[in-house]
Amino acid sequence: MERIYTGKTKDVFKDTNGDIVLYFKDDMTGKDGVFDPGENQVGLTVEGSGRAGLEMTSHFFNILKDKNIPTHYISSDLDKKEMRVNEIENFGDGLEVICRYVAVGSYYRRYGKYIENGTVLKSPVVEFTLKDDERQDPVASKETLDILGLLTNEEYDEIESLTIQICDIIKYELLKKGLELYDIKLEFGRDKETGDILLIDEISGGNMRVYKGDENIHPLDIGKILFN
Amino acid sequence: MERIYTGKTKDVFKDTNGDIVLYFKDDMTGKDGVFDPGENQVGLTVEGSGRAGLEMTSHFFNILKDKNIPTHYISSDLDKKEMRVNEIENFGDGLEVICRYVAVGSYYRRYGKYIENGTVLKSPVVEFTLKDDERQDPVASKETLDILGLLTNEEYDEIESLTIQICDIIKYELLKKGLELYDIKLEFGRDKETGDILLIDEISGGNMRVYKGDENIHPLDIGKILFN
Repeated sequence: MERIYTGKTKDVFKDTNGDIVLYFKDDMTGKDGVFDPGENQVGLTVEGSGRAGLEMTSHFFNILKDKNIPTHYISSDLDKKEMRVNEIENFGDGLEVICRYVAVGSYYRRYGKYIENGTVLKSPVVEFTLKDDERQDPVASKETLDILGLLTNEEYDEIESLTIQICDIIKYELLKKGLELYDIKLEFGRDKETGDILLIDEISGGNMRVYKGDENIHPLDIGKILFN
Repeated sequence: MERIYTGKTKDVFKDTNGDIVLYFKDDMTGKDGVFDPGENQVGLTVEGSGRAGLEMTSHFFNILKDKNIPTHYISSDLDKKEMRVNEIENFGDGLEVICRYVAVGSYYRRYGKYIENGTVLKSPVVEFTLKDDERQDPVASKETLDILGLLTNEEYDEIESLTIQICDIIKYELLKKGLELYDIKLEFGRDKETGDILLIDEISGGNMRVYKGDENIHPLDIGKILFN
């Protein structure tokens, strides 16, 4: 297999048959050894976190598949920490789509003048951000994404609608185990063959903030609770 | 008259008859003595800038009045540097609405990965920001302004539509003198008596970026060209 990309928490390979293989590393985003899903850098390495991330991702991608949500997922091999996926094209250098149910993190930091930390939002807020470390992943509106040539208005609406469908499913699955989803980050791409918009990347503890009562659940513990 | 507010570039008084009087100071926003409409602090004091700001504001408010655009403007006295206006209520602690025709300033700083500085936008971009020095006046979406209790979706649409009408008029007036409007900041409030949404504050060189060819025109020179 040929390595085609080295990411913060995953490396990407192309198999000899053309399949794309994501390798889940034991690195997590954060700062100074403390996990933070909103951070842009690798902050800590935890043995087993790659496998745990892949396990949760496979779990959710299988649920989404059953509900006919389009994703890039083909199969996964937990022992090898590998997920096999369809090849996609990114929107520009990549978009992240955040779905927020509770005002925490950067949303609270921006709007803390008018909203208290931890306020449940009356409806989920979907925000699109550009992957751009240098500019701290700026939020971009529908209008701006069109102007920048990244998403047409129709593509924006499709991704926004998929995001709410997907996140509501994940929220419900977590709730069955008494876990509350505060916010979560998704990524989308275009299927390289068909051009269809697909959910890509991962759905793991590292991309979401989850609480049980007042307690912020560590990403590695989310899986432990979910699979118990 | 009783002083009811001390601003960066204007003080606000209430007259004995209940009218509100804005006093235009000779202070301009900027940093280290250099004017910057995007700055949040007073950076320089220029004799005559208060009068010049009021002259341009009165000019544009009169044009808007003729076109039946609702504003808070009643009358002005250039020698006293005073503008008489209807009393309004702010949305929260104040919103600023930016209309952009060209990608410069903070828009370019955010989206420079995908757009060159000075690119003409294919359609004007309207952005709402919260007046909040501590949090650097964050941009807020329609959805978020509703969640924060600042604007209903209907009010957002009304202000967005008024903004484009108003800014297109200003752009056209400047163009008659060979000046090109790159971006401009407006403010809106609710008429304290009727509840109507009104354009408030000022329309002066200090709130806009204007170019002539490649040259950035200093705010005080915009008026000189406009009234010649």
